[in-house]
Amino acid sequence: MSHYWSRIVHSLTPYVPGEQPKIANLIKLNTNENPYGPSPRVIEAMQAELGDDLRLYPDPSSDRLRQAIADYYGLELNQVFVGNGSDEVLAHTFQGLLKQDKPLLFPDISYSFYPVYCGLYEVEYQQVPLGDDFAINIDDYLVENGGIIFPNPNAPTGRLLELGEIQKLLQKNTESVVVVDEAYIDFGGESAVGLINQYPNLLVIQTVSKSRSLAGIRVGYAMGNPDLIEALVRVKDSFNSYPLDRMAIVGATAAIQDVDYFRKTCDRVIASREEVTAELERLGFDVIPSAANFIFAAPSKISAQDLADELRERGIIVRYFNKPRIDQYLRITIGTDDQNRALISALQSIIPAG
Amino acid sequence: MSHYWSRIVHSLTPYVPGEQPKIANLIKLNTNENPYGPSPRVIEAMQAELGDDLRLYPDPSSDRLRQAIADYYGLELNQVFVGNGSDEVLAHTFQGLLKQDKPLLFPDISYSFYPVYCGLYEVEYQQVPLGDDFAINIDDYLVENGGIIFPNPNAPTGRLLELGEIQKLLQKNTESVVVVDEAYIDFGGESAVGLINQYPNLLVIQTVSKSRSLAGIRVGYAMGNPDLIEALVRVKDSFNSYPLDRMAIVGATAAIQDVDYFRKTCDRVIASREEVTAELERLGFDVIPSAANFIFAAPSKISAQDLADELRERGIIVRYFNKPRIDQYLRITIGTDDQNRALISALQSIIPAG
Repeated sequence: MSHYWSRIVHSLTPYVPGEQPKIANLIKLNTNENPYGPSPRVIEAMQAELGDDLRLYPDPSSDRLRQAIADYYGLELNQVFVGNGSDEVLAHTFQGLLKQDKPLLFPDISYSFYPVYCGLYEVEYQQVPLGDDFAINIDDYLVENGGIIFPNPNAPTGRLLELGEIQKLLQKNTESVVVVDEAYIDFGGESAVGLINQYPNLLVIQTVSKSRSLAGIRVGYAMGNPDLIEALVRVKDSFNSYPLDRMAIVGATAAIQDVDYFRKTCDRVIASREEVTAELERLGFDVIPSAANFIFAAPSKISAQDLADELRERGIIVRYFNKPRIDQYLRITIGTDDQNRALISALQSIIPAG
Repeated sequence: MSHYWSRIVHSLTPYVPGEQPKIANLIKLNTNENPYGPSPRVIEAMQAELGDDLRLYPDPSSDRLRQAIADYYGLELNQVFVGNGSDEVLAHTFQGLLKQDKPLLFPDISYSFYPVYCGLYEVEYQQVPLGDDFAINIDDYLVENGGIIFPNPNAPTGRLLELGEIQKLLQKNTESVVVVDEAYIDFGGESAVGLINQYPNLLVIQTVSKSRSLAGIRVGYAMGNPDLIEALVRVKDSFNSYPLDRMAIVGATAAIQDVDYFRKTCDRVIASREEVTAELERLGFDVIPSAANFIFAAPSKISAQDLADELRERGIIVRYFNKPRIDQYLRITIGTDDQNRALISALQSIIPAG
């Protein structure tokens, strides 16, 4: 605490990201990274960018990348905004669109950065309880609000809300912005991006961190009506003219353009998820149906926290949230085949038989 | 304008960065980039980072880079904060340290992003007029204030405030934060970083964009008392867990560590600045003494705007600010020897003789 700080700093409760361990040879199933590296075309494109031109500022509006995203999703350039990871895109969205006189709504179990943004920008919010099965019920959101945001599939549950439900919500909730945070959508859901031209208050946020194997270069994007995008551009241009560096722009562009590699990688992760789910169920876990690259599951014969500790002793890191309603669950990222086998084998040795 | 926007968005006047032209073969002397590329060690380090590990998030606290900065300046790790370009570091500083009940002070002619940040975070401010010679007079800042910020050397004038003056200011102004924004300090000034351990309210901000030839990778840093740094960390961790990507972390670390290359490059730019200054004076310009990698100068026989237009027609871009007090000046970045010669030759052909 310091008398030099701005008032807001005293009240912040920062987000705590999953651990990025500095020890080698750990099996890291805690931050939902893709088990497979990026497309070889990404590496080639970044390779070509390495040189004297790094002395020059990047394109402040990242047109090339935005055009690649627009082309892939069938949008116009002015319907796409890019930022330094989807966390930055979310931050600008909270400040530029979701700070309203009425409270913002989001699920009680959800991405734990949402209340942190509300703290930073003094956004009033209400958390809407998920059903007992961790499902989002859109009827619960049909109340006075200054905006609605949820991940789809939800995090950390992995549970998908069907597109038809999102469309129902948009038909009924027309006076405030609805943000669908689709970090994990490519692993088993249908994106709401196809609804953008019908609903001017829909903003869809995605990232290259998960399905495109590029958490290391920090690129996220928002898609929506040009009017919503303009709000984000205004905030961005009042914050940082050049949020994406040269390497990130070319790398992300190549990733979006290599559709075959992307589909193949997603398919492998989805197949592994189904295998791991079956194994966990055999081991007595309650597994929430997942449309993501992770599984949210509760062990039946050991506490989740003890199990996380035991796994860590065996060199495997998973994510445990010490929070109401979910403190009996672990969030386990899908790894490579070898990593998944190591996980199952460790679980078999830890969990009492019977 | 949209009824979906947050209130603040309607009143923003975003910063307009210098043009990043998409036409090749222009001589770009408008955004103060270094004319020389980054150190070969930077390229090697980034090369080594290109691979499957790009699937993984970077270190959220960029410890390796912060340690390199701390080592270079003789500081502790907790005295260093890093961000996605010094613009992001400045943004967090405005939000986390400079938003106070009393007005923030900065020069009337200064980095034009400062009032933009004030708009974004609703920071009250007062602009303090520079002297007629564009010098900062520290006595003008010894009034009630919620913080003081200025670039040193100042932008866009290039004029240096001597370190002794900064120390006098710190001796007298102890109740609010003093930010010295040293984007250009390596081209001819002495950094205030040596005063950090004496003055708990001093924050020094630097960047790898200029003297370390890396505008393309977006890395800036702040150095100060651990208590000031903690405010920035709290804001950062409430905004974006991973602001620096893997490529930027390794590239900036290598740049900070290659001291010989850095010194050699700065020396070349300084020598060229002195040559260009002499030529401009011969051509009748009023040249403000510069300690930066650019020159702020007023032509005597043609309007600054007309001259900028004429240069552009000859493929040379410089920066013109259509603002009170400085609308007769051009800001000209120091280029390579060839670029500087082309500039002088173009000026000779444009400016009427005699």
